[in-house]
Amino acid sequence: MELLDEHRCFSGQQQRWRHHSQALNCAMTFSIFLPPETDAPPPVLYWLSGLTCTDENFTTKAGAQRVAAELGIALVMPDTSPRGDEVADAEGYDLGKGAGFYLNATVAPWASHYRMYDYLRDELPKVIAENFKVADRCAISGHSMGGHGALIMALKNPGRFRSVSAFAPIVNPSAVPWGKKAFTAYLGEDESQWHQWDSCALLEKADPAHAIPTLVDQGDSDPFFGEQLQPERLDDAARKAGWPLTLRMQPGYDHSYYFIASFIEEHLRFHAQHLR
Amino acid sequence: MELLDEHRCFSGQQQRWRHHSQALNCAMTFSIFLPPETDAPPPVLYWLSGLTCTDENFTTKAGAQRVAAELGIALVMPDTSPRGDEVADAEGYDLGKGAGFYLNATVAPWASHYRMYDYLRDELPKVIAENFKVADRCAISGHSMGGHGALIMALKNPGRFRSVSAFAPIVNPSAVPWGKKAFTAYLGEDESQWHQWDSCALLEKADPAHAIPTLVDQGDSDPFFGEQLQPERLDDAARKAGWPLTLRMQPGYDHSYYFIASFIEEHLRFHAQHLR
Repeated sequence: MELLDEHRCFSGQQQRWRHHSQALNCAMTFSIFLPPETDAPPPVLYWLSGLTCTDENFTTKAGAQRVAAELGIALVMPDTSPRGDEVADAEGYDLGKGAGFYLNATVAPWASHYRMYDYLRDELPKVIAENFKVADRCAISGHSMGGHGALIMALKNPGRFRSVSAFAPIVNPSAVPWGKKAFTAYLGEDESQWHQWDSCALLEKADPAHAIPTLVDQGDSDPFFGEQLQPERLDDAARKAGWPLTLRMQPGYDHSYYFIASFIEEHLRFHAQHLR
Repeated sequence: MELLDEHRCFSGQQQRWRHHSQALNCAMTFSIFLPPETDAPPPVLYWLSGLTCTDENFTTKAGAQRVAAELGIALVMPDTSPRGDEVADAEGYDLGKGAGFYLNATVAPWASHYRMYDYLRDELPKVIAENFKVADRCAISGHSMGGHGALIMALKNPGRFRSVSAFAPIVNPSAVPWGKKAFTAYLGEDESQWHQWDSCALLEKADPAHAIPTLVDQGDSDPFFGEQLQPERLDDAARKAGWPLTLRMQPGYDHSYYFIASFIEEHLRFHAQHLR
């Protein structure tokens, strides 16, 4: 583990680390915000970013540290894909580096590195637990592709997270252009393999006994709202599954970090209730 | 005036504009945050950024819109120098584009475009007044080179600003490496010409009858603290001049936007008191 960067921020520490990932078979960078120290180790909120992002977009633009410092929550921001010269990539912002979709790829040339699901589920939490004084309690949130990531992580791992939230998530990737392109490349043409990475499909099989509080915000001026996002599909699936989803439409807001910054405080306070 | 970008943010509007500047003889970009509309037009806080920055650094990283929305203050973020292929530039981050030092250059090749002082004093406020519903009341703040800019703007224009603040400002550019390099290039070797752009020198001639509340924050882990910044020089000059300066040392904070984000709320509340 190499400390790349450290800044005092709202009386806590904003740090950036590099480590070798076995799951991804490459060097990976993550950011972490540690709130001001108290006697009790802080719970952790994982934040998963969207297409084209690294660990730094949320870190620099969301303004989350202020509230995380107040509430005593550690924030962990991973990168959005494996990185490095050895890692396969593609033309376009929506496949390859910066576009890992938080799944385990099964098809060449992606399968050798693109295992973000294993990295997030097993490896990164272990790295965090071994290197930082944090509590076991955790929650997860994310934006767009990262909102998809947060939702599938929560749905596939009952009992792991206390709560989940998302900003403008890709809720039904199997059925929208971003997801179809990525899933075809990473998982192959057999669509039956896609459903295990699709929140709407996962909700059909979800056990309401393991449901956790779920908050989704969606701006109605988001240019991706109608085609790529379609949050009403998640709302329908959640209702059928008896899953406690609160979907809020936010008038006038778009897909940018200005939208995230405007509502991140409410998401953090939502998670804090369940992380106590 | 061309609107480049617009985002809803904390129920207000974050906008980015391009216009032709006569003072600078080039196209210029600025950002503006307009708080949620009320019956009374909002006062304006000008924010001047530091070396290498554009109008977007503060806009995306400081988290100021939340508090500005609450307090009903419009934020105006200009660029840090003239821009474009016709504009002289230099090697290094601390001279030329991104390093205008908020002065009027008098020496070739800089004099034909580098007139940021005239732009900020006369042209930009006129553009703002003519195109946005804002009040005449204004204040000014900035970071590093922009802290220098905010202080000289306030000291050279009695009655213009209600209050001034700065994060890690260059207070005595005539005597430190950044300032000596820039002033030699922009103003020539005659140091007597430098003092009109130097806060410590300007304070020697300041009329305390025109003094305005002044707040400066400085991190003690700032790598530029001892050589380039030396805020104690401003403190000495202010004390001799009877100028109401509050200088706060902030333990552990550095020169980054994490430092600015941590204290921008206090600066905005300070200005709001005087902008009422």
